[in-house]
Amino acid sequence: MSAPVNIAISGAAGQISYSLIFQLISGDLLGFEQPINLSLLEVPEMIGALSGVAMELEDCASPVLNNVTCHSNPEVAFKDADLIFLIGARPRGPGMERKDLLQTNAGIFSVQGRAINAVAKRSVKVLIVGNPANTNSLIARTNAPDLPSESFIAMSRLDHNRAVSLAASQCGCNVSDVARVIVWGNHSATQYPDLYHATVGGESVLERVGEHWFKQEFIGTVQNRGTEVIKTRGKSSAGSAAHAALEQMRDWVKGTPQGDWKSMIVTSDGSYGVEQGLMYSFPVQVSERGIWSIVQGLDINEFSAIKIKESELELVSEREAVSHLIPSFS
Amino acid sequence: MSAPVNIAISGAAGQISYSLIFQLISGDLLGFEQPINLSLLEVPEMIGALSGVAMELEDCASPVLNNVTCHSNPEVAFKDADLIFLIGARPRGPGMERKDLLQTNAGIFSVQGRAINAVAKRSVKVLIVGNPANTNSLIARTNAPDLPSESFIAMSRLDHNRAVSLAASQCGCNVSDVARVIVWGNHSATQYPDLYHATVGGESVLERVGEHWFKQEFIGTVQNRGTEVIKTRGKSSAGSAAHAALEQMRDWVKGTPQGDWKSMIVTSDGSYGVEQGLMYSFPVQVSERGIWSIVQGLDINEFSAIKIKESELELVSEREAVSHLIPSFS
Repeated sequence: MSAPVNIAISGAAGQISYSLIFQLISGDLLGFEQPINLSLLEVPEMIGALSGVAMELEDCASPVLNNVTCHSNPEVAFKDADLIFLIGARPRGPGMERKDLLQTNAGIFSVQGRAINAVAKRSVKVLIVGNPANTNSLIARTNAPDLPSESFIAMSRLDHNRAVSLAASQCGCNVSDVARVIVWGNHSATQYPDLYHATVGGESVLERVGEHWFKQEFIGTVQNRGTEVIKTRGKSSAGSAAHAALEQMRDWVKGTPQGDWKSMIVTSDGSYGVEQGLMYSFPVQVSERGIWSIVQGLDINEFSAIKIKESELELVSEREAVSHLIPSFS
Repeated sequence: MSAPVNIAISGAAGQISYSLIFQLISGDLLGFEQPINLSLLEVPEMIGALSGVAMELEDCASPVLNNVTCHSNPEVAFKDADLIFLIGARPRGPGMERKDLLQTNAGIFSVQGRAINAVAKRSVKVLIVGNPANTNSLIARTNAPDLPSESFIAMSRLDHNRAVSLAASQCGCNVSDVARVIVWGNHSATQYPDLYHATVGGESVLERVGEHWFKQEFIGTVQNRGTEVIKTRGKSSAGSAAHAALEQMRDWVKGTPQGDWKSMIVTSDGSYGVEQGLMYSFPVQVSERGIWSIVQGLDINEFSAIKIKESELELVSEREAVSHLIPSFS
């Protein structure tokens, strides 16, 4: 057996984490032969409940789980972490403005970014899941100046999976036949799920589904899917979010499938005209060694260009709302 | 790809199922190459929430999930099922006597047993998880007279895993080094977690931990672990129960590990003096072809014999409380 991999999780007593953690100790992320240490972070008032989760983890008697610890101090929780899932975030409360939501979460993620900067392994991979994910990840990344910016990415995989599933359903084919879907931009209602490059069994998805359905049905359905799940289930997506987080981290560690890409929120290098430094969802490929890169050279038509710009502008305005917490920006 | 396996789940909008289902579509039960159809059963008032779960399953875009359907009629839900998890059960409400709890659940499980008898595949494997699991499984089995009694087993794997984990922790070794633990009897406070045959790295666990600790600490801690989790987490075990259900079903389908056994609640054939026909947790081995058998020939000392009898008597009295719903008994 190899040495344990240190995995830290914030918001560890919440619903998404509760779904994720039991899959981690089943070997779904790194395989059944790779032991892991779990370092679970919660706010002080949730430490009791979190201890109960830790008891349940022990009760699984999984050979994958080497060790589990519970923390309320991020500088302890993130010590020597190899992989970090930042899941905990303040949800929007009644009467809360979006600006307040951004501010509150920026406070959380600046503290966590600094803690990661101080104590995590220099090779750490940090996946931000907690919303608003793009701007939270921007705050975390910019507060960790000693780490490469590549160390921070955020989750658009749930949107990506929703887009793949809906496209496959409309084509009447299996999800595994659909490739090269892209979700661009912000994990918000301005996200742009793009089928212009998507294939089904090697052929154009758009030719199968038609441009009318793509523009009139597909885009809006994917953008609003999270809201529809809340309406129907009575709770926000948790199991599907955890599934997406695990898949995105696994692809980051082990590489994306040959001939395909996945949508990931990464630091823009100016590709496709998106302002450099923004955290933006792009089509991304990951090498077997775990190095990600934005897919280059895709043709962008006018329809797409407008959508890509719209989501970028929203992210610029989010950044302005929290600029006092971005060291290089204030 | 092989033909999809039909998996039905009752109580599918509850917490245990919510943890289980996302592991099923990750391939944790039958492997990533085996597609599955999920047939989800809930009471009518939960069908709305269940549809939300089905949306989330689609949103995972998992190639393992061929199809998901939601039902409130067990005769539809269990049609052609290969594997069934009976998870839904009425929990004990405030002021409810144990007898009322037994009665209410016996009503549910007699209906489900008859439905399985009528419509499931003749090779179906049914795992009862909902409590009181032993007596619920007795009711289900006896209401399915056209199926072999071997088709029904109930879950004592969570107790088994808790016992393994605690023994490993006391020995200071990995859980994978511990083998041949047994949990006998009822999934209740009379269960008897037995270390007399248990080994760690091939040597006696009891010699390592001492008989005093075994009798004064170990037995009570395992028996009361569920209550402790509720106290600490504020909710009953869900993730660990789902993990155990998945493991027990996987062992039933693919076989138990060479040289070890697992605790499972199965129909007694009179082994170890337990009344024939009772659903009782024994040490069980499963062949690669999925045929289970009770491990024979273990030496039982007087201490163990008393504990084994005590749990048997509790099950006999539970059976009497619901005897009007047992066709061969009334």
